[in-house]
Amino acid sequence: MKHLLSISQLTTTEITEILHDAEMFAKGDCRIQKGLGYAANLFFEPSTRTKSSFEMAERKIGLDIIPFEASTSSVQKGETLYDTVKTLEMIGVNVVVIRHPQNHFYLSLMENIHIPVINGGDGSGQHPTQCLLDLFTIQQEFGGFKGLEVAIVGDISHSRVARSNQEALNRLGAKVLFSGPHEWSDPSFQENGQYIELDEAVERADVVMMLRVQHERHGGSIGFSPDQYHLKYGLTADREKRMKKSSIIMHPAPVNRNVELADELVECKRSRIFKQIQNGVFTRMAVLKRALEF
Amino acid sequence: MKHLLSISQLTTTEITEILHDAEMFAKGDCRIQKGLGYAANLFFEPSTRTKSSFEMAERKIGLDIIPFEASTSSVQKGETLYDTVKTLEMIGVNVVVIRHPQNHFYLSLMENIHIPVINGGDGSGQHPTQCLLDLFTIQQEFGGFKGLEVAIVGDISHSRVARSNQEALNRLGAKVLFSGPHEWSDPSFQENGQYIELDEAVERADVVMMLRVQHERHGGSIGFSPDQYHLKYGLTADREKRMKKSSIIMHPAPVNRNVELADELVECKRSRIFKQIQNGVFTRMAVLKRALEF
Amino acid sequence: MKHLLSISQLTTTEITEILHDAEMFAKGDCRIQKGLGYAANLFFEPSTRTKSSFEMAERKIGLDIIPFEASTSSVQKGETLYDTVKTLEMIGVNVVVIRHPQNHFYLSLMENIHIPVINGGDGSGQHPTQCLLDLFTIQQEFGGFKGLEVAIVGDISHSRVARSNQEALNRLGAKVLFSGPHEWSDPSFQENGQYIELDEAVERADVVMMLRVQHERHGGSIGFSPDQYHLKYGLTADREKRMKKSSIIMHPAPVNRNVELADELVECKRSRIFKQIQNGVFTRMAVLKRALEF
Repeated sequence: MKHLLSISQLTTTEITEILHDAEMFAKGDCRIQKGLGYAANLFFEPSTRTKSSFEMAERKIGLDIIPFEASTSSVQKGETLYDTVKTLEMIGVNVVVIRHPQNHFYLSLMENIHIPVINGGDGSGQHPTQCLLDLFTIQQEFGGFKGLEVAIVGDISHSRVARSNQEALNRLGAKVLFSGPHEWSDPSFQENGQYIELDEAVERADVVMMLRVQHERHGGSIGFSPDQYHLKYGLTADREKRMKKSSIIMHPAPVNRNVELADELVECKRSRIFKQIQNGVFTRMAVLKRALEF
Repeated sequence: MKHLLSISQLTTTEITEILHDAEMFAKGDCRIQKGLGYAANLFFEPSTRTKSSFEMAERKIGLDIIPFEASTSSVQKGETLYDTVKTLEMIGVNVVVIRHPQNHFYLSLMENIHIPVINGGDGSGQHPTQCLLDLFTIQQEFGGFKGLEVAIVGDISHSRVARSNQEALNRLGAKVLFSGPHEWSDPSFQENGQYIELDEAVERADVVMMLRVQHERHGGSIGFSPDQYHLKYGLTADREKRMKKSSIIMHPAPVNRNVELADELVECKRSRIFKQIQNGVFTRMAVLKRALEF
Repeated sequence: MKHLLSISQLTTTEITEILHDAEMFAKGDCRIQKGLGYAANLFFEPSTRTKSSFEMAERKIGLDIIPFEASTSSVQKGETLYDTVKTLEMIGVNVVVIRHPQNHFYLSLMENIHIPVINGGDGSGQHPTQCLLDLFTIQQEFGGFKGLEVAIVGDISHSRVARSNQEALNRLGAKVLFSGPHEWSDPSFQENGQYIELDEAVERADVVMMLRVQHERHGGSIGFSPDQYHLKYGLTADREKRMKKSSIIMHPAPVNRNVELADELVECKRSRIFKQIQNGVFTRMAVLKRALEF
């Protein structure tokens, strides 16, 4: 039984193994396992792609799914996360995926929960399966990570994607560049990454990874109009033209069209945004394979 | 791959084929197809019967279902319908059913979505599977449509049922009569249908199709008390007695009992209301067969 | 076809048979039945464990599940419970489980619904599957019921657990003791049970069954602070020490930790709380077996 709580927890060998298994699943090499049992997906924050992606990955490897809706659960009666997960374990659930607004929500589960816990995103902390699918997409494109420059652009300080990705990319030999509004930078990140102007970033980077402006984390006000943000910190059609020939665009989605990314670039030739979504299923199948050790 | 967006889009031959397949499914002639893949049902408006009916039809033909809840999806983060559906396509979903409050919601999906889209009701526009199940129920009863008179009674202007049914019935050779409050009539409908008083309609029609008073579309106020509406525009026990011997009662449900229809008539001998619900599953199986071309 | 509406409805022989089947399922003697069909779970009140437990039990015996969410159903359009259930029957659902805030909600379903209805909790009425799983847990522990003393402690008057359990335990030969705030006692219960002080109850009882303080049924105000309640009416670590060696602690969960039960006792050696949850699945499998007569 192996939890997946953060990227930090994984050795480089483990990361490589997960990417290898994802590649195998992407090639269609997937036999449904009999008797894997039951999964439950506990999403305490809105999500389409992560939840649906896990639902698909679970079905594809042969898990059955016990539905869980946070809004109609006993969490409404004040039940703790531990009691909820322990209940599901006792009912016979074999693996849980949890997204929760609280950083490190999983700490309360480590001692007495005896089924694997997969972090589907914790507050502004980590989002390890998003990170792994990003790595998988980059590896697919460039064959590896050594020497690559990856620019992560936008609301760095609130982004669990930025946090997980910079750590993993550094360990795998890529160089991470940060850009975006200085108000949203995060000093703790810059130890391992360089903060540069966007116009430089788009010209240098092999991967331009745009982050979502998270209106919901800024109380509705981001201090810029969408148009202003787009011109100053967004990947505009103009900036895209200055990217290197082989460079690609990534985004964790959902995209705010014409805010961080020009509408016309979402499905342009360089964009790997929907490829990332497709890869998400294969990566999560690999993560579930590791968790359930089959 | 064949979308189902509106009744207008279907040729008369296609309608006939769908009704034929529905008949086949009603007779129990249904082998589960292996490897049909995955469906997702995106309901952006409340629904019991349409959603459950699709869920059952999908399972019966062998589709697996990826759950989707509008209220906890990224639509809450402002994601467009196109991006939501494209995401599901990339995740591996093979067919989507969508109910949406906006008329013609599907127009944005036509260019770049490569899986079939089935319209489960668009605003005050169309509701093609409801129309097809109504047709199927009428055909089952009368063997065909030529020469039949069908009275559609109630809130014509807000009804996607009225819109789809009058068009299809006219094309198949039936005559459509409209009745109900004049405030709720719709001039654009009357080109192909005649507006008459309710007492005449119930005596003439082979099918009396009562529409739901849609309180939720009238801001709670319909300008009549339920009792007044019932007496003036409802199918009362008295009016039912004046129907022709062979005539039947239909209603798309849910029924407001004792508003548009007397409580005691909901399951009376003439009523095909629950039969319609049963037929809905067979009709939707036929629609899915067409969409997935198996 | 056999409904399960209340414990009163079951003969003692029927109770014994259900407990016997639950034992069989607990031992792993479960072959999935082919072609059992479809279940729907209609929960009009929040629930994690009862809903998930039924979902698991249904899957384990081979039922497929048609999802139902009260909040997005036509109940929002004013549809009656009867019409909702009849719709599901016509769509092809073979068994429904219903939790509903109204006592005896099932009365409207008895005449014209032709699929089994299982009561998953009605208002402050009954909760027969919770009662049966409690009985199963007690039988597992003590081999039977004759001569046992079972103390039910807490908010007796609002508790469907108390109501169902006292009736069943009396019939099976156990003696029921009640304790807790006098304001929350219920004279109608005391005909068959004795009201005693908590300190006496914990020393005498073979089973100390603590009830949840249902904040949501007291409009947020219970007239005690949680600490006061815990000291006066809760099972504290101190009181636990005065229990008989062989006595066990039960609770229908979710637990308000440090209100009715000390946090450290939730998973102590005497506690059968998570065992109850595990037994819930086996008991519900047995109830479904009875309902569908396989």
